[in-house]
Amino acid sequence: MQNRIENALVNAVARAEHGAPPRLGSALSYAVFPGGARVRPLLCLAVAEANGEAASPLAEAAAAALELLHCASLVHDDLPCFDDASERRGKPSVHRVFGEAIAVLAGDALIVSAFETLALAGMTAPHRLPALVALMARAAGSPSGLVAGQAWESEPSVPVAEYHRAKTGSLFVAATMAGAVVAGRDPLPWRAMGEKLGEAYQVADDLLDALAEGSEGGKPARQDEKLGRPSAVAALGVDGAVAHLRALVAGAADAVPECKGAATLRGLALQMAERLVPVRFKQSAA
Amino acid sequence: MQNRIENALVNAVARAEHGAPPRLGSALSYAVFPGGARVRPLLCLAVAEANGEAASPLAEAAAAALELLHCASLVHDDLPCFDDASERRGKPSVHRVFGEAIAVLAGDALIVSAFETLALAGMTAPHRLPALVALMARAAGSPSGLVAGQAWESEPSVPVAEYHRAKTGSLFVAATMAGAVVAGRDPLPWRAMGEKLGEAYQVADDLLDALAEGSEGGKPARQDEKLGRPSAVAALGVDGAVAHLRALVAGAADAVPECKGAATLRGLALQMAERLVPVRFKQSAA
Repeated sequence: MQNRIENALVNAVARAEHGAPPRLGSALSYAVFPGGARVRPLLCLAVAEANGEAASPLAEAAAAALELLHCASLVHDDLPCFDDASERRGKPSVHRVFGEAIAVLAGDALIVSAFETLALAGMTAPHRLPALVALMARAAGSPSGLVAGQAWESEPSVPVAEYHRAKTGSLFVAATMAGAVVAGRDPLPWRAMGEKLGEAYQVADDLLDALAEGSEGGKPARQDEKLGRPSAVAALGVDGAVAHLRALVAGAADAVPECKGAATLRGLALQMAERLVPVRFKQSAA
Repeated sequence: MQNRIENALVNAVARAEHGAPPRLGSALSYAVFPGGARVRPLLCLAVAEANGEAASPLAEAAAAALELLHCASLVHDDLPCFDDASERRGKPSVHRVFGEAIAVLAGDALIVSAFETLALAGMTAPHRLPALVALMARAAGSPSGLVAGQAWESEPSVPVAEYHRAKTGSLFVAATMAGAVVAGRDPLPWRAMGEKLGEAYQVADDLLDALAEGSEGGKPARQDEKLGRPSAVAALGVDGAVAHLRALVAGAADAVPECKGAATLRGLALQMAERLVPVRFKQSAA
């Protein structure tokens, strides 16, 4: 799966880069490669596969689109007018290397590239495209997607659950639902799994931020505390947050709807999420 | 037509605004209303109508999407890291009113909203959606759309024709081609008309910038000269630029492919473009 995701991303970035203004083109590659764990696209392909869609251009396009939207949000969230983050994924952030103007444009181009990638693969299955584009747009934009999540940080008072649902949950929900759509299934039963995994990732991110020293998470530590952002660690303490994370993952596995590959998918969810638990809290000693 | 365009835009913005973080929601309305001449959506609907598609949800969605992408690019281009424009359409620019963070996010949300608008209307005509989304993405993104056009300004050396084609031409080409696609026609013959009109608008914009006093064009005058940007006025002089504008408009009218409403559409192109010629150069004395 990892290869199919990387290939789809390489193709999408090459399409946006070839013939582009050189600095913009370089910034697009820099923002997407090398990636993190590619969790959202993996989740999407796993759901598609569990629904009998082992491999299709549309499934790969959906996986790539999720990651492109994720990368776009990282580039924009790191800008000086937001977090002014100096590092991302263990290297200098896009605006530190290419400047603010190119970082704004790179984020824009990655958003557009996500939809272009869907459209080009959609030629092979047009009847599935409207629902797929609509759900990706809902996950990316306003009122309840990534952009809205980031915009809550500019409000004097932040509804915490809604903020996390938009900022982290939305792409996980889109991942599970898109996996169903590309396989020709009703996406609604897949929402709950995405929601729980999204919450689990948010808690894991809060833990990483609170426990990391220096920049071991690939970005500077203790940003939540410094910026006064809502955090599961602040609300529940470290032990409470770890327990909450485990409960959410179990809930995500339970929420997998009946389908051909349900058992495999439940196992994968548990396994993906166990990776999120900070090392010193792992249950297995192996 | 103007009413159908405004209605489609009102619906798109309301969808993005309802339930959104309040400052983001307000910024979206502020960026889209009141609009300019809505030239790109008018052109799209006129081409659809000339091809026998008098009114359809997909045609209106395409028109709205063009304007949303245009507004997004205005919001981002005005940011401090680009032009740092204080005014736009005769009022303070989005970042001056709402701050830089919200301006970045508003632009992002408008881009996403354009694709969401297409997808929702695409449910009624899914077979036309892949081509429509692909051509809008090409016009908006990289390597040859609005984003790429803006990124050429960050390069040490700018290929002028390519810069203008991307920055101004791309949405005009998308407008004429989308008008054909929503009517179920081959879009390729419609490219030339969009290209010529896009060039004409670029020349008109250069003239407006060079001839305007203060901020009568709704934005500060003489920006091209101040920022050392390529301009038809710098290259051809004012008279030469006016002559070039007229030739481009005549070329656009000649480029209208044979279709039911070709004569009307040619008339409309001439009329739209005549509005672009600075007053003191108008031929008619009426």
